[in-house]
Amino acid sequence: MIRAGIIGATGYAGGELVRLLLGHRNAEIKWFGSKSYIDKKYANVYRNMFQIVEDTCLDDNLSELADQVDVIFTATPQGYLASVLTEDILNRVKIVDLSADYRIKDVAVYEKWYQIEHKSPQLIQEAVYGLCEINREKVKVARLVANPGCYTTCSILTAYPLVKEGLIDTDTLIIDAKSGTSGAGRGAKVPNLFCEVNENIKAYGVASHRHTPEIEEQLTYAAGKEVLVNFTPHLVPMNRGILVTEYAKLKEGVSSETVRAAYEKYFAKEQFVRLLDEDDCPETKWVEGSNYVDVNFKIDERTGRVILMGALDNLVKGAAGQAVQNMNLLFGEDEAEGLKLVPMFP
Amino acid sequence: MIRAGIIGATGYAGGELVRLLLGHRNAEIKWFGSKSYIDKKYANVYRNMFQIVEDTCLDDNLSELADQVDVIFTATPQGYLASVLTEDILNRVKIVDLSADYRIKDVAVYEKWYQIEHKSPQLIQEAVYGLCEINREKVKVARLVANPGCYTTCSILTAYPLVKEGLIDTDTLIIDAKSGTSGAGRGAKVPNLFCEVNENIKAYGVASHRHTPEIEEQLTYAAGKEVLVNFTPHLVPMNRGILVTEYAKLKEGVSSETVRAAYEKYFAKEQFVRLLDEDDCPETKWVEGSNYVDVNFKIDERTGRVILMGALDNLVKGAAGQAVQNMNLLFGEDEAEGLKLVPMFP
Amino acid sequence: MIRAGIIGATGYAGGELVRLLLGHRNAEIKWFGSKSYIDKKYANVYRNMFQIVEDTCLDDNLSELADQVDVIFTATPQGYLASVLTEDILNRVKIVDLSADYRIKDVAVYEKWYQIEHKSPQLIQEAVYGLCEINREKVKVARLVANPGCYTTCSILTAYPLVKEGLIDTDTLIIDAKSGTSGAGRGAKVPNLFCEVNENIKAYGVASHRHTPEIEEQLTYAAGKEVLVNFTPHLVPMNRGILVTEYAKLKEGVSSETVRAAYEKYFAKEQFVRLLDEDDCPETKWVEGSNYVDVNFKIDERTGRVILMGALDNLVKGAAGQAVQNMNLLFGEDEAEGLKLVPMFP
Amino acid sequence: MIRAGIIGATGYAGGELVRLLLGHRNAEIKWFGSKSYIDKKYANVYRNMFQIVEDTCLDDNLSELADQVDVIFTATPQGYLASVLTEDILNRVKIVDLSADYRIKDVAVYEKWYQIEHKSPQLIQEAVYGLCEINREKVKVARLVANPGCYTTCSILTAYPLVKEGLIDTDTLIIDAKSGTSGAGRGAKVPNLFCEVNENIKAYGVASHRHTPEIEEQLTYAAGKEVLVNFTPHLVPMNRGILVTEYAKLKEGVSSETVRAAYEKYFAKEQFVRLLDEDDCPETKWVEGSNYVDVNFKIDERTGRVILMGALDNLVKGAAGQAVQNMNLLFGEDEAEGLKLVPMFP
Repeated sequence: MIRAGIIGATGYAGGELVRLLLGHRNAEIKWFGSKSYIDKKYANVYRNMFQIVEDTCLDDNLSELADQVDVIFTATPQGYLASVLTEDILNRVKIVDLSADYRIKDVAVYEKWYQIEHKSPQLIQEAVYGLCEINREKVKVARLVANPGCYTTCSILTAYPLVKEGLIDTDTLIIDAKSGTSGAGRGAKVPNLFCEVNENIKAYGVASHRHTPEIEEQLTYAAGKEVLVNFTPHLVPMNRGILVTEYAKLKEGVSSETVRAAYEKYFAKEQFVRLLDEDDCPETKWVEGSNYVDVNFKIDERTGRVILMGALDNLVKGAAGQAVQNMNLLFGEDEAEGLKLVPMFP
Repeated sequence: MIRAGIIGATGYAGGELVRLLLGHRNAEIKWFGSKSYIDKKYANVYRNMFQIVEDTCLDDNLSELADQVDVIFTATPQGYLASVLTEDILNRVKIVDLSADYRIKDVAVYEKWYQIEHKSPQLIQEAVYGLCEINREKVKVARLVANPGCYTTCSILTAYPLVKEGLIDTDTLIIDAKSGTSGAGRGAKVPNLFCEVNENIKAYGVASHRHTPEIEEQLTYAAGKEVLVNFTPHLVPMNRGILVTEYAKLKEGVSSETVRAAYEKYFAKEQFVRLLDEDDCPETKWVEGSNYVDVNFKIDERTGRVILMGALDNLVKGAAGQAVQNMNLLFGEDEAEGLKLVPMFP
Repeated sequence: MIRAGIIGATGYAGGELVRLLLGHRNAEIKWFGSKSYIDKKYANVYRNMFQIVEDTCLDDNLSELADQVDVIFTATPQGYLASVLTEDILNRVKIVDLSADYRIKDVAVYEKWYQIEHKSPQLIQEAVYGLCEINREKVKVARLVANPGCYTTCSILTAYPLVKEGLIDTDTLIIDAKSGTSGAGRGAKVPNLFCEVNENIKAYGVASHRHTPEIEEQLTYAAGKEVLVNFTPHLVPMNRGILVTEYAKLKEGVSSETVRAAYEKYFAKEQFVRLLDEDDCPETKWVEGSNYVDVNFKIDERTGRVILMGALDNLVKGAAGQAVQNMNLLFGEDEAEGLKLVPMFP
Repeated sequence: MIRAGIIGATGYAGGELVRLLLGHRNAEIKWFGSKSYIDKKYANVYRNMFQIVEDTCLDDNLSELADQVDVIFTATPQGYLASVLTEDILNRVKIVDLSADYRIKDVAVYEKWYQIEHKSPQLIQEAVYGLCEINREKVKVARLVANPGCYTTCSILTAYPLVKEGLIDTDTLIIDAKSGTSGAGRGAKVPNLFCEVNENIKAYGVASHRHTPEIEEQLTYAAGKEVLVNFTPHLVPMNRGILVTEYAKLKEGVSSETVRAAYEKYFAKEQFVRLLDEDDCPETKWVEGSNYVDVNFKIDERTGRVILMGALDNLVKGAAGQAVQNMNLLFGEDEAEGLKLVPMFP
């Protein structure tokens, strides 16, 4: 039985981690960390857990926690883990970090986009970027997994086969992303109030969103040369779900069959990536509550561009589900254990 | 392994049955019946099932189906099952009917409220009303289970302990119910269009909704005398969930402790009914996707009334979940098998 | 031209007042008061007003404001106006108060339900309860108008003709109310976040909501004897709208015609109250953005009860619209000036 | 007083036309045409109009109608107007067509994208494309106005100044559009049901949506050379609103100041186009219910692209509002008469 601790258990991603781990046959949650709700019953914060979770929220003591559990999930604000993580802790426990602290290899890039000084840059190189479909083998032997961002997972997986196989001109890649509101977190802020989000759509963080360099770094590895993208997130009046619509110029002579074959090459054996039938567009509703990413594409012969589309649940494959998937890899479990969730419709 | 067939697999309740049965360790779906989509791939109707269900929709042949499966779920329009069910079929297969055909013992009442002639009244007496928490033992030995309605399950369970224990004046009982829109089904009708439902709330079926006599019959059994209620359903702009708010005069001298003790008497051992802590009001979101019913109450000393509240997911405990619970009872399975679903939030 | 000042112009009711007064031919806003946004451009707080309102938010100086305008609207927290209003100010300016400070004549009742000490109880008697359809003549000569609450306006108008004419047993009156989320205000609180409200319905303030005594006081005047009610508000995932469903025992022999005649007696000449055709149920969407209250009823012969229904837009007839209607009465304007708003659908 | 007739008065755009014309000082509606609801009271179809509109729906007799009114609005399916319009009718009445029948000058392009044979191609050349901000003078003297599509209006106005001034490489222009659900019309179809749209976002009509050639034709006029674009619409779970996010390579040396100056050159005097302050992103909620288009832009120095954003209410500036604006131009009225609508928030 894998003993798990969560720091940041009362955010939306933390809550989803609890939901998923409760359904995992070989894991149990030993520590519900939440600085904001210390000594309060967890089920009073998330009443869906009433009579399911009897635990009380605990403080964030990483070192003490390292002695009690096999894996720690940190669903914490940017900068927190970097400020407390040490080599000594990593010797005692595996860590899956849902924040961005160890996702970006170039500390200068991290510090520029996040406007935070990184307190443990010496640990960045070791961290494995936990996009399981791409870095599976590295995750298996890691101590520290940097769990990818929600927009990032969707954006990268949707484009990966075309970038890796050189089918598109990466200089022309544009990512227009749409997200449900749980991605904004549970903080009490006016822009996230029901009446401000409902019946509304807007772009935000235009040309400046922090997930941009994370996407670029991973696609750069895939392309074997520097990739810069336009990434524009939008806030959609729904709880869960991310949809990305990506645009790029196809290389000369690339056909629909070639594109489809590229997707199949990388994803045919992946149980959590579904390449849809021709002409079916991904919809966030069809993956809600599950760990799936649905992808598909359409070529516009008139403009020579391919339109790529991907959809996932930002709290599952975009956060907690991928974190559990990484945990399974870390401990030699069936990668899908706890994640065989049928999407809920409607 | 229980072999199950579904007639009406492409309605919302049918779709939810598929989702739940896919997670059941000892059941498998052998027949996806859907008159409207014969020969079409089921996963093309419900794309959440892509790469999960490979079956094609079949016609509604009850007799043929009876030879192939152990249990048939009928999620069909009122009158369908009554028009095709026979003693012979019941000798061959168990049936859990999600329509109203066998819920009401008095065929005249059924025909008055549903405006349909009942074609097999001789089978009504045998049918067991499948509200598991109340009729558990009868369900275990039944051939034909009348699975309760969504409003009904919520309304009855919320009031049952007080009615059964004689704590309220049942002549004063009023049920004000609020439902998400999946309860209206997947039929293409203008009043169910997004733009008509969204940003709107209304009452409908006032003093005439078909779930009224079903609620009254069951509460009459509990009270040991005739109970008539006002039942008013409302349509709420959300996908899932039913909330009932019930009002009744408390009998002289009944205290909060007495009411709580009554709830505990009937529900303390029930794994799917949660009596909330004092002053916590049930919310549909806290039970979404799960088989729970959350109940609680508040006494208004000024008026001498008690306000009862109950919440459930209309597609789970209000339809497919309860149907699976009944199947488990019919076949001697753990009653909660396939139903240990943690509510999804947000 | 009526010069108007608003204190609390950046709450939702304040914003709606601005929208309505901008469409009023004989009124102009001279003061956009907002303690939270002093010196900030109003159109930066509410960007719908971009290039429409050029003013900057000002502090809450009631006395100074009294010299500059003809009428002051206070859309402020409970207790604010009571703590600053004086006889001297009332001699200089008319006041329409959207808070509850002067709605309840019995100061002890106010202090009990609001848990605030009332700082100017000597002004309570003079205040006119500004439910125009009932107190029109008194409003015309008032200095201080207590603008009714949103739930209250809907609850009272829906029941008034039956209570006034003695058609129901007021001891049996129950009000089950449903409100959109703008009624909860623009404060940044977790329970009002999009993800907490969306896809959810719940009761709140059960047997303890502050609008209860306000409803009771007004219905007591109408009945000529003390009326106590059960009032239960619910939060609905939509921006605007209140729907009330009320239940009461009809007096012996009261027919549908009698009830309809009662509604017509009081409302036939009212331009903002619409008695719907038989069997049409009020829906909040049909009054959205307008000053209308839609009402109707249905008698349940089986239980001897009448079910009353009423719908309004909580920010218009439930707040800012009624405030403008009161202003029109105070200054001898056409009562409907600025309020001839066609409801917006969808 | 302008006498107006509406054919297609019971669709969403038709309903909005009624709302707007009711607020117009110099227009009155003489004919509520609706083939589906002949002889039914209009206010029974749209109950927001109860006690406001007393008329009954009439059949679609274009020739008879031409004798009774000064202007006819056709909010009808594609192909209808083209099949009944004649020179004779145009001699008797002005027509503002909200369908696509006369928007595209090249009849072959129309027939290819709409898959309909055009029945009156001889009238296409005369029709004026009614995008008022661009074709104002031509509209004033027209007999037949082709009112632009909702996506089209937003897409074109957002890009127009940059295309006209040659600031972007039009070969790189990509338009990612998001629309509320009223754009899908009031037809009873499963994909438009509440439960299918709610909590969901998807792209549709990828590389094949009919508004594409309309956008391209108008931008081609502006650019003075052929423009082809990628246009991808998305369905958003909200009633009203369109947001477009457009991407293009800036020409060498074009600065933020240059772009802003271009917008100001064309829109500074336009009362319905609002160029937002730097860094403010358009949101559909801020224009809801009004005739405004809000636009802004952001340059991404890293990629050399400009991101353009525009928002409007699809039923107002995207349909009925623009139609009234065109009517005002046709009859020499103040262009903003009936359209001074303050956006409603929240």
